[in-house]
Amino acid sequence: MKYLFIHVLGYWVMDHTFRVVEQVPFSTVSDYKTADKLRSKLIKKYPDLQPLPLEKSYVVLELLKNPKYFEELHERNVLLTKQGIKAAVSEDWLIMQAIANVNELDRVTNLLVKRLREWYSLYFPELAIRIFSNEKFVDLVISRTKSGLITELKVKETMGADLNDSDVEEILLLAQQTRGQYRLREQHEQYLRRVMQAYCPNLMELAGVTIGAKLIELGRGLKNLALLPASTIQLLGAEKALFRHLKTGSQSPKYGILFSHPLVQKARLKDRGKVSRALADKLSLCARLDYFKGGFKANEYKKELEERFSHE
Amino acid sequence: MKYLFIHVLGYWVMDHTFRVVEQVPFSTVSDYKTADKLRSKLIKKYPDLQPLPLEKSYVVLELLKNPKYFEELHERNVLLTKQGIKAAVSEDWLIMQAIANVNELDRVTNLLVKRLREWYSLYFPELAIRIFSNEKFVDLVISRTKSGLITELKVKETMGADLNDSDVEEILLLAQQTRGQYRLREQHEQYLRRVMQAYCPNLMELAGVTIGAKLIELGRGLKNLALLPASTIQLLGAEKALFRHLKTGSQSPKYGILFSHPLVQKARLKDRGKVSRALADKLSLCARLDYFKGGFKANEYKKELEERFSHE
Repeated sequence: MKYLFIHVLGYWVMDHTFRVVEQVPFSTVSDYKTADKLRSKLIKKYPDLQPLPLEKSYVVLELLKNPKYFEELHERNVLLTKQGIKAAVSEDWLIMQAIANVNELDRVTNLLVKRLREWYSLYFPELAIRIFSNEKFVDLVISRTKSGLITELKVKETMGADLNDSDVEEILLLAQQTRGQYRLREQHEQYLRRVMQAYCPNLMELAGVTIGAKLIELGRGLKNLALLPASTIQLLGAEKALFRHLKTGSQSPKYGILFSHPLVQKARLKDRGKVSRALADKLSLCARLDYFKGGFKANEYKKELEERFSHE
Repeated sequence: MKYLFIHVLGYWVMDHTFRVVEQVPFSTVSDYKTADKLRSKLIKKYPDLQPLPLEKSYVVLELLKNPKYFEELHERNVLLTKQGIKAAVSEDWLIMQAIANVNELDRVTNLLVKRLREWYSLYFPELAIRIFSNEKFVDLVISRTKSGLITELKVKETMGADLNDSDVEEILLLAQQTRGQYRLREQHEQYLRRVMQAYCPNLMELAGVTIGAKLIELGRGLKNLALLPASTIQLLGAEKALFRHLKTGSQSPKYGILFSHPLVQKARLKDRGKVSRALADKLSLCARLDYFKGGFKANEYKKELEERFSHE
């Protein structure tokens, strides 16, 4: 009977009295990583080879107490950890980062457009009053001259000051920066679409890009999301209302971020709880299909839900 | 004795019994605006012309009760107001808007760099740890490849994942957007410098562009700032601490936004109150020089302050 102990520093083969028979140090960490191959090679050499029983591992620990191993042991362990961290970056993380960034861009862009509206209103206040959409406002500021806007909006007499060209240009710089943010947000969304198309096509099809990505973010990864019960998915993003409900007995929430899903939005107020429950059921199935590499069924689910709730 | 009443709709000349002798309607508002010329012309015609006494104005009001005047009166008044608003936009407003935007950009850029640091750390976490300056971080991300950074920072083994080019590109887009914000902030500052050079050169010289503009913002315009006592200027931006002091008797604040002025920054801790008081004195003089179009003396003041506080 022989015993084998494989370690990041090398391997040891011991006989039945736990005396070392063969000891080979690894020159790099990658030898440790291909330990499986090594093991089968060694089994050919020692047909009665067994892994060292856990309760006997002190034998090796005694050997490793030799200070000559210390530095190398530390270095290799750090290296292994680093490689582990490196390997842990999955599509989940890319999606979570990208969607977090989309959200931040939304917030930041709104702040800048608010400033732009105020600043531009020195020049032509009638525009900010008449155009509600932020994105359209930015586009108009960039694409039209003041006189063009006056004609287009049929403003008789503007209250805006006649600023110098250099003053107006400064405002336009801000508008262009803001438009760049809108473009960047669009690009992030396309990127998310590409990543999710390969990684979680079912979830993306049924939830849409933004909501799908947010679900992955709130669920902390596709694996977790796949393991969550549908009722939890239904309430992702409504944690505050849920805990208020549990604590004070206020009304329980019926949806979290699913609120902004078109199916829930289209439903009548009294049906919305029902719709979001059914939707969460299907989304849970989608997450499982995606995580366990099932087929593509999201379009069927989508049709089913649409038919079911259009009849009511 | 004749009386004259000029009004946005026209003018009336009355005799001593307040009966209308001559009544001429204006065809546009601009006739009303050149009323001074009109007055001297009428004085030639009626040498004993007087303005209508206030207590007799009901005579005209009676005339204006005629509904045929209503619509025109309303229209012309609105027009006058609009023109008044238009004329009220001064350099003060341009400066206030620009500095508010610089502040907003600072805030927003920090938010985006925070996101960038997190996202880029999936790819190369060692950079975010080693580079503290946000602006430098953005520049490095854009200008170097990962392998370039590894060489430059002498990183042995990175924990960052090997992302696809398309994933890295998405991160770079964010970095470029952020760099655009840094550039925009610089441009706004140059713009402020140009506007302030013409409008308040003394204030700009002594306070610097950013602090000078903030003083105008906090003082609500150069005129107001020029009329404020120096002690108020010293505490602009420290309103919260001041009212806390008045309410609870806590320590009174010694500086508001002047805290970030180089002179205050360079001073020893115990001298800072004294320095900021002296600085506020001179800044108040600067604001007055600028508002009342005095000469350029800020460089003398600056030298004086520097000499006085470098001796201590």
